[in-house]
Amino acid sequence: MNTRVQAIYHVRADASAIAARARAIAVEQSVEMPLSAIEDPEILSGIVGDVEDIADLGGGLFAVRIGLAAATIGDDPGQLLNMLFGNTSLHADVVLQDVILSPTFAAQFPGPRQGIAGLRARCGAARRALTCSALKPQGLAPAALADLAARFAHGGVDFIKDDHGLADQAFSPFAARVPAIAAALRDVARDTGRATHYIPSLSGDLDRMRRQTALARAAGISCVMIAPMIAGVASMAALARQFPDMAIFAHPALGGAARIAPELLIGKLFPLFGAAAAIFPTYGGRFGYSAETCRTLAANARAQGALPIPAGGMTLARVPEILDFYGADTMLLIGGSLLDAKARLTAETARFVHAVAAH
Amino acid sequence: MNTRVQAIYHVRADASAIAARARAIAVEQSVEMPLSAIEDPEILSGIVGDVEDIADLGGGLFAVRIGLAAATIGDDPGQLLNMLFGNTSLHADVVLQDVILSPTFAAQFPGPRQGIAGLRARCGAARRALTCSALKPQGLAPAALADLAARFAHGGVDFIKDDHGLADQAFSPFAARVPAIAAALRDVARDTGRATHYIPSLSGDLDRMRRQTALARAAGISCVMIAPMIAGVASMAALARQFPDMAIFAHPALGGAARIAPELLIGKLFPLFGAAAAIFPTYGGRFGYSAETCRTLAANARAQGALPIPAGGMTLARVPEILDFYGADTMLLIGGSLLDAKARLTAETARFVHAVAAH
Repeated sequence: MNTRVQAIYHVRADASAIAARARAIAVEQSVEMPLSAIEDPEILSGIVGDVEDIADLGGGLFAVRIGLAAATIGDDPGQLLNMLFGNTSLHADVVLQDVILSPTFAAQFPGPRQGIAGLRARCGAARRALTCSALKPQGLAPAALADLAARFAHGGVDFIKDDHGLADQAFSPFAARVPAIAAALRDVARDTGRATHYIPSLSGDLDRMRRQTALARAAGISCVMIAPMIAGVASMAALARQFPDMAIFAHPALGGAARIAPELLIGKLFPLFGAAAAIFPTYGGRFGYSAETCRTLAANARAQGALPIPAGGMTLARVPEILDFYGADTMLLIGGSLLDAKARLTAETARFVHAVAAH
Repeated sequence: MNTRVQAIYHVRADASAIAARARAIAVEQSVEMPLSAIEDPEILSGIVGDVEDIADLGGGLFAVRIGLAAATIGDDPGQLLNMLFGNTSLHADVVLQDVILSPTFAAQFPGPRQGIAGLRARCGAARRALTCSALKPQGLAPAALADLAARFAHGGVDFIKDDHGLADQAFSPFAARVPAIAAALRDVARDTGRATHYIPSLSGDLDRMRRQTALARAAGISCVMIAPMIAGVASMAALARQFPDMAIFAHPALGGAARIAPELLIGKLFPLFGAAAAIFPTYGGRFGYSAETCRTLAANARAQGALPIPAGGMTLARVPEILDFYGADTMLLIGGSLLDAKARLTAETARFVHAVAAH
């Protein structure tokens, strides 16, 4: 009963109050009741969270490490999030900054499976960074999306993902869009001898996502995308367990709203729960993550064998800088800025692919 | 294609920058690409989000109302969250404050079903506020939890919920705990002639939650609890659609971390997606929601027929104040402070029940 999961919180507090605040978090994230009302000594020693360390980070910020009983969690990713941050998320003074899991505990979760190695194998690229673009805008019919995909593929990009807004809408139902795009990409591959892999975006409840994944697999596709903070992390893990041959790309939608450090949520937890690749908004784009956050996030993903995918306002001009920063175990995702080339989309895509290969 | 969902964002910006920032949000939450690259006039007029209004709230804060195409959403709660706040959640300057849905659009979602009327019918209380307590701590075995439930029930409380940390752990597996507690409550009801209803907490993926709900129903239980921000809102809606006779209680775990106004997330969206009752941390407890937030949250829930449940550090002494504030269409949830009465738990519970009935 004494195996522990370590949660690290960054807490804003006065120095005089931090010890009591840390103890309150340890209680809130374990038994959530007055300790005076607990009579069982095994619960007091084995289940109640312990404050293991408090470090003063300066400026009124403290790093608090709390040990939580692994026995309260088990193999459910949702329950792990619940015990790490369920109620404490309701307190504005706390960020869940990091978590330390023993290898035995972590092994209960699916992990990235088709991660860096699986994604490299898909496109026969052993060392260089991988490339990706995105199908947009919403509102296009399947034939128009398939045409767009073919133009990207002629440019030689490794992967093409759905815009994360593409779900199962009347204008491009999943069951019509996915086979159409898969067929278009097969045609291009037949001409060019080079495969481009499509990553359709899943939506709905687990039943629907399961049907969509099966449909994608039946169409010869080996990748899918999911937004774990919308779908529920347990849904992603269930898909990862049921479809071990499929590479799951995690989209950060709704993840930024969580007061959970992105290095942890996107870089560590999403891969642990089954993401082969983790998309995140890179520093210097249209979102606000710092370079340091991005560096740690990418390192965390790679440490588990998952591929980091910096995105969110990437441009062709930034490819050398981004590759210098992230290195080759990375997939570069450029969407809008390639689409903006309009008639020259294929040529612009080819420049992107060349810039990555030549780096 | 022109039916709209209105999203209201509170945005921190300079007055000189707010118009451009509002347009950027409208694009981010719809087509997410440069408008210059969109050639189809129907997408430009029908799918791209519109900035409908910008109101200066003072102090550098603006209320921005954006119309989003209902055609991009459909009947999936996850896709609604995605289009309302998916990528914009990654921007720290924006709070999703409110949403306006047409009755036709809202009718696609389950709604609270067994809401205020269903919960009142369960306990034969037509007018007074309802009462609830909680089973804690984690680590107790099913027999000990059943004994605790019986003591609460002898005190006359209407509902007893699982601690939201209770999942399917080895120390009290769902399949052992739920029938044991149901049987204990039936025994008390046979003695006292007054039923106390148990609300077990669901966890895991949709398959597991479905099996748990079926098991609860088979044990004669008509309520379950779910944390929609952990389980995924689509999972809650799927359960609401499959089990229309079960009252779903929404727990706010992980919901506070979202930069979505609690009035909206807990008060409006959880009931829309299937919650009969919405638990939230009341003002003046150990969490930080303001009285004004709590008042609006409760009113939003009731407007849809769902029961608000203020909780999070409630005490017996506060019952009159809380009832004056929230009125009788409310369930009062007191957990830790009753448990702290230890040997006097049943008597203290009876005082709670009496205080509510006598108000």
